[in-house]
Amino acid sequence: MCSICPPFMTTNTAYLDLEARFRRLSAVEGAMAILGWDRSTMMPQGSAEDRGEQTATLGVIAHEMMSAPQVGDLLAAADAAGELDTWQAANLREMRRGWIHATALSPALVEAMARATNRCEMAWREARPKNDYAGLKPHLQAVLDLVRETAQAKAAKLGVSSYDALLDQFEPDGRSARIDVLFAELEAFLPDLLRRVVERQAALPTPLPLPGPFPVEAQRRLGIEMMKAVGFDFAKGRLDVSAHPFTGGTPDDVRLTTRYDEADFARALMGVLHETGHGMYESGLPAAWRHQPVGRARGMALHESQSLLLEMQACRGRAFITFAAPRMQSAFGGTGPAWAADNILRLYTVVKPGFIRVDADEVTYPLHVILRYRLERAMIAGDLSLDDLPGAWNDGLARDLGIRPPTDTLGCLQDIHWPDGAWGYFPTYTMGALAAAQLFQAACAADADIEPGLARGDFAPLYRWLRPHVHEKGASAGTDDLLQAATGAPLGAGAFRRHLERRYLEA
Amino acid sequence: MCSICPPFMTTNTAYLDLEARFRRLSAVEGAMAILGWDRSTMMPQGSAEDRGEQTATLGVIAHEMMSAPQVGDLLAAADAAGELDTWQAANLREMRRGWIHATALSPALVEAMARATNRCEMAWREARPKNDYAGLKPHLQAVLDLVRETAQAKAAKLGVSSYDALLDQFEPDGRSARIDVLFAELEAFLPDLLRRVVERQAALPTPLPLPGPFPVEAQRRLGIEMMKAVGFDFAKGRLDVSAHPFTGGTPDDVRLTTRYDEADFARALMGVLHETGHGMYESGLPAAWRHQPVGRARGMALHESQSLLLEMQACRGRAFITFAAPRMQSAFGGTGPAWAADNILRLYTVVKPGFIRVDADEVTYPLHVILRYRLERAMIAGDLSLDDLPGAWNDGLARDLGIRPPTDTLGCLQDIHWPDGAWGYFPTYTMGALAAAQLFQAACAADADIEPGLARGDFAPLYRWLRPHVHEKGASAGTDDLLQAATGAPLGAGAFRRHLERRYLEA
Repeated sequence: MCSICPPFMTTNTAYLDLEARFRRLSAVEGAMAILGWDRSTMMPQGSAEDRGEQTATLGVIAHEMMSAPQVGDLLAAADAAGELDTWQAANLREMRRGWIHATALSPALVEAMARATNRCEMAWREARPKNDYAGLKPHLQAVLDLVRETAQAKAAKLGVSSYDALLDQFEPDGRSARIDVLFAELEAFLPDLLRRVVERQAALPTPLPLPGPFPVEAQRRLGIEMMKAVGFDFAKGRLDVSAHPFTGGTPDDVRLTTRYDEADFARALMGVLHETGHGMYESGLPAAWRHQPVGRARGMALHESQSLLLEMQACRGRAFITFAAPRMQSAFGGTGPAWAADNILRLYTVVKPGFIRVDADEVTYPLHVILRYRLERAMIAGDLSLDDLPGAWNDGLARDLGIRPPTDTLGCLQDIHWPDGAWGYFPTYTMGALAAAQLFQAACAADADIEPGLARGDFAPLYRWLRPHVHEKGASAGTDDLLQAATGAPLGAGAFRRHLERRYLEA
Repeated sequence: MCSICPPFMTTNTAYLDLEARFRRLSAVEGAMAILGWDRSTMMPQGSAEDRGEQTATLGVIAHEMMSAPQVGDLLAAADAAGELDTWQAANLREMRRGWIHATALSPALVEAMARATNRCEMAWREARPKNDYAGLKPHLQAVLDLVRETAQAKAAKLGVSSYDALLDQFEPDGRSARIDVLFAELEAFLPDLLRRVVERQAALPTPLPLPGPFPVEAQRRLGIEMMKAVGFDFAKGRLDVSAHPFTGGTPDDVRLTTRYDEADFARALMGVLHETGHGMYESGLPAAWRHQPVGRARGMALHESQSLLLEMQACRGRAFITFAAPRMQSAFGGTGPAWAADNILRLYTVVKPGFIRVDADEVTYPLHVILRYRLERAMIAGDLSLDDLPGAWNDGLARDLGIRPPTDTLGCLQDIHWPDGAWGYFPTYTMGALAAAQLFQAACAADADIEPGLARGDFAPLYRWLRPHVHEKGASAGTDDLLQAATGAPLGAGAFRRHLERRYLEA
């Protein structure tokens, strides 16, 4: 049984009833995804309250659909009736997982959370540019209080710690005990590796800067050209602008965003490729299981692995830059040695501790994530108050990266995640970075044409491997099982370490 | 009691329960409005099926909320308990109206209609440019069958004819017997007036054409400048592009669209002003009654009166053109006699029978509407089949306007309304034109500064009168009662006739 075969004609009527309910739920969630995209890209600022009402109401409706008393009975009946093929059984398991998460919360808590995060996100949009942590704090406190309430409610149902209950929302079966081990492994080699890379790069001549400005329209066209090379389907997707880039929408209506800086086109271009990686995962999910829980992405670690595989593993490597450099030249009318592939490759692999996570290189990025992971665990545990957050943030960055943010704009105000209620999300970025390295190494070992393909702008060989090994699996297997099947090992830090050593110390 | 006073603190708990339910319903409908806007402006073409699932599901959910068994009981209990102020009583009346419309239909019929219109609208988008009536016909037949089923179900509940039941969806308490009288009055003078206007304009020197092309970006900027002059609030609204211009979104998030033709800027500019009239009505609805039925627009006749009042009465008149002509010149770098206000005014008031309704002048427009009104009544009654529609359309236009469409693209394929399920909508355009003339004449009689205001681009005096007399009334009174209070008479054709005679025969 695979995702392409027609599903087994089961006589398990409870299961079939659940399929119909989850299809309907998926349509409501799809509507919310488009409204969320609109809020960040199109909505006039004065309409935020109106939108808040809409999304809060749809959130309550989705929650009611999931937590209807019949769903629990149907899950039990479907389990008892059996007669399901592998995918149907996996779908039933994912239904149950969603149901446990949903029924752990009262409708009042769901609605309060939707309203609080809506208000807090808007407050964050104002506070960040103004360096106004004090202005954000009451809104963030309201969110944190509700997140802790959520965590406690889910922890009781899942039989895990409060923090693991939050993590489980983004990375099913993810556990902090496992993350602690992976992150300890990273901390054992990363600071020394970072020091050696910085020294090595300092000993080389400085790469030549690319002379701007780079008009937004030319950047947009180049981004779209590269998205098309990767294989992004514009008949079922778009590229727009938002303050904080993201991939939204649905698998059949993928909405990517970026932001443009006329002084630096690499930022938007690499951002676009990053989001395209997310978008390719979404659009490659098993079409036969659209609108069902098993047809969704496995979790945020694998999701991030797909964006980082495209951006960091493929597009910041020599093969792709060889293909892209002349297209960059032609997009911006560039001439001279700065536009040579070698120089661009060096520009794109500069390693330098900085304040902003989303601008961080792949060596320092995990250290940003580990800091946030520690801080949010402490806040959820009640060991760190919001009064003490800016200080703890700045101390942590000084310790891990040797730099201290001069403002909260460059410190604890930089990320949307906490205002948005996405606590327990941060570690999945680094889990994704590890998975990306592991998958890319396995893919290149399996098909010797993948790297040469990148050098001619042909991503078909890469996606011919990723589609069946990752995307078309949907949520039919756990992250570690999927990695085991695809790469021969569960998630680890080894491939990531080898990747960094090769690219930054040996190349 | 007015829309601005705080509502009476009623002890009618059934009524208060209904208010909470209708607030929630309004949020779902607001979400659907934004998704509908997105479908026409932003959505990639390949995502139509996905969007169809979303809107069909939300439509079913909204229908279930309205038709929940408790709603009927609560309406009865709220009626019995009384203790409501004028607005609350009007709100209860509007709740009942919506409930009757919703409960007349089975959920299966609502869902089938949502799917059929979604498919048919997409088919229409393909068929229109290809002159492919045969390609559209099966989709349109599916819609017509469901519309007739809807009409019969609603007619039984409302105690009116099938056609009037459809009309009632767009124009509450609108009846074809009344429309027949108004349209007979129009038909008694319009053909002769049209003949005299065409003769008179033929006797004058031809107005000078404005030399293009007119770049889209300059048109967009001019449109936005004019919207700002009118008073449109861009903090709660946007202007975008769609194939068929419309006003969508919600009162606090008004989404206008237009389409640009680089050979002719008047089309987009006047279209933008038309939609701005709709948008001003929406944003001026009583803020204290947002998200309640009584806080909505009264009906489509008054809605169209607000767009036509702005476009036809105000912006195609001498005062506004005096203000706008130099701004048009500067937007497009125009020079010479063609750009004089007098010439532009003549260009904007050319009367000429043509095939396309949305391009028609205000003299011939009602004749387009009367044709569609007759055809759709015949189709609903079963007296005209879709096989015979193109012929009947072309014969009708030849009879009423003396011209015969050479293609269906220029004939019965031109409008979105029938594919979209909006049968019974067309007559409200001409009811709106009559109301616009009646309201504008009353406004100018009440405040002598309105016309001089237009000449200096100051719409504040006009809207100072329209806000309290029309917009802030919401749905608290019927169309005729509102017009009686605002203008001293119910809806009639007299003011419209005087307007046409003054502008086209006396000026």
